[in-house]
Amino acid sequence: MHDEFARIEWLRARFELHGADERLLVGIGDDAAVIDLGKPPVIVTVDTQVEDVHFRRDLISCRELGYRAFVAAVSDVWAMGGLPSAALIALTLPARLSDHEFRELIEGLAEAAESTRARIVGGNLSGGELLTVTTSVFGAPVHEPVARKGAEPGHLVYVTGTLGAAAVGLALLEADGLDPEQTNHFVERWKRPPLNDRAATGLAKIASAAVDVSDGCLQDLGHLCKASLVGATLRADSIPTENSHDSVCEALGLDPLLTALAGGEDYELIFTAPASNEAASLGTTIGEITAETGVRVVDTHGALVDVQRKGFRHFS
Amino acid sequence: MHDEFARIEWLRARFELHGADERLLVGIGDDAAVIDLGKPPVIVTVDTQVEDVHFRRDLISCRELGYRAFVAAVSDVWAMGGLPSAALIALTLPARLSDHEFRELIEGLAEAAESTRARIVGGNLSGGELLTVTTSVFGAPVHEPVARKGAEPGHLVYVTGTLGAAAVGLALLEADGLDPEQTNHFVERWKRPPLNDRAATGLAKIASAAVDVSDGCLQDLGHLCKASLVGATLRADSIPTENSHDSVCEALGLDPLLTALAGGEDYELIFTAPASNEAASLGTTIGEITAETGVRVVDTHGALVDVQRKGFRHFS
Repeated sequence: MHDEFARIEWLRARFELHGADERLLVGIGDDAAVIDLGKPPVIVTVDTQVEDVHFRRDLISCRELGYRAFVAAVSDVWAMGGLPSAALIALTLPARLSDHEFRELIEGLAEAAESTRARIVGGNLSGGELLTVTTSVFGAPVHEPVARKGAEPGHLVYVTGTLGAAAVGLALLEADGLDPEQTNHFVERWKRPPLNDRAATGLAKIASAAVDVSDGCLQDLGHLCKASLVGATLRADSIPTENSHDSVCEALGLDPLLTALAGGEDYELIFTAPASNEAASLGTTIGEITAETGVRVVDTHGALVDVQRKGFRHFS
Repeated sequence: MHDEFARIEWLRARFELHGADERLLVGIGDDAAVIDLGKPPVIVTVDTQVEDVHFRRDLISCRELGYRAFVAAVSDVWAMGGLPSAALIALTLPARLSDHEFRELIEGLAEAAESTRARIVGGNLSGGELLTVTTSVFGAPVHEPVARKGAEPGHLVYVTGTLGAAAVGLALLEADGLDPEQTNHFVERWKRPPLNDRAATGLAKIASAAVDVSDGCLQDLGHLCKASLVGATLRADSIPTENSHDSVCEALGLDPLLTALAGGEDYELIFTAPASNEAASLGTTIGEITAETGVRVVDTHGALVDVQRKGFRHFS
């Protein structure tokens, strides 16, 4: 497809022309929208996973796909400092999908719905060439919604969990050759995005801005910084990764730091906040917000690290 | 695909197993779900239009497609006696779709959003082989939500607007040969589903049950009757159709009554209510709810008309 971000930017401008609407608290260009339909406001988001674009049928089972698609969509609600309460599922089902596979897909969605406490309340079934799962999720902010805008110079940058494991897991699936004992954990991290409800609840009270990591830490933090009109400096030695991340990356011919910072599909939460024990209890401090725009990475001596900035490579 | 209705029935049963949830006021198997996230309750629905399943690119422009997909999704909110307030758009865009076509698609969606007063608050862009528009709509009931369940014997059956025109319009587009002067109106009816906000507002106060006509009057009224544990008798001579419906049907080799009753994609509203002037002011009386289950069609003498019951034929 054409430049997705340019099109989103065009959409944001296009729909802002409609004029101010006091019911729209957060609009196009954030992880999710927040609308005032009563009290509390409703957080709404939608995510689509398309066969041969976001997943290959030979690399993930229908049940795993359902779980993954659902949690990835919920992740956008957590990134707004919200908790999900309900979801709609729109499925495009190829004729070759058996009833067994259909039910497995639904069981994966149902497991994720239970794990995230977002009840599946409806949906839509359609025929179509490629298996597609579109998940719309509704939720409510725990406190006030946390947008991408709001980070201020001096605030620290935190990330939940570890980075890069999903990208390593996908690379392992595609390479299909390394020792499963050492690598199953990474594959699981790609197949099962993390449940960040506790972090979402915690950051809702203290974060100045937040975003979830779908396209890679550098790219998503870049979106947050752009929305906040600030920049960030990350410390290369603070980036949290899984045990054996470096050795598995090297076996795969991947750069460990680049994979952690640009690999994508982590579905961890990046948030910014004034330094505090509470913030530190929710994630790892990886850097600091700066008045200077752009996202930089520095080594232990403060020297710039030349991280090739590229986003996650999709299948097509 | 496999039997869509069997799968929906399986889904309904599957997700009812989770047990009662007092926040879920209407669940799977209706036009839309109604969830209690605060006051007022929120009506949520999702609809997908897939290239070569629901539309052919050579029969509808991108702008028309956007308008049509959006209004068709909103129709489910109106059928619940609700008015829409916001929508999320998930688009799957083939690489061959130009930026101009993308913007035309968005302008069609935007026109429909303005016409239906459902603000587009967010969405998702994805690559993919086939152009797909998935519209999630949120709204609020005007009064109490109107479900498919609730029709009682003796209530009359009403329908807004006319039936069969969209099916005739699509047949005309596919035949591509009749006099445009006489037929443009039908094509417009397929391309531009009706705006039923006024009817939705009116029926919200008086209807015992309602459904929108997507698969055809007989099939959708059948769903309403099944949910209400009743049946219906329709009077063939009361079915409202467009001027020249019969002659255009005959020129196309279509049965006029069958086309009106089973053609589908009308996106008109069928509702049931005790006889009243108010109900009659919103639509045409086409029959009566009966204790005997099943939907029957009778002529002016009360004799059964053998209408071949078949739903709308999709492209594939």
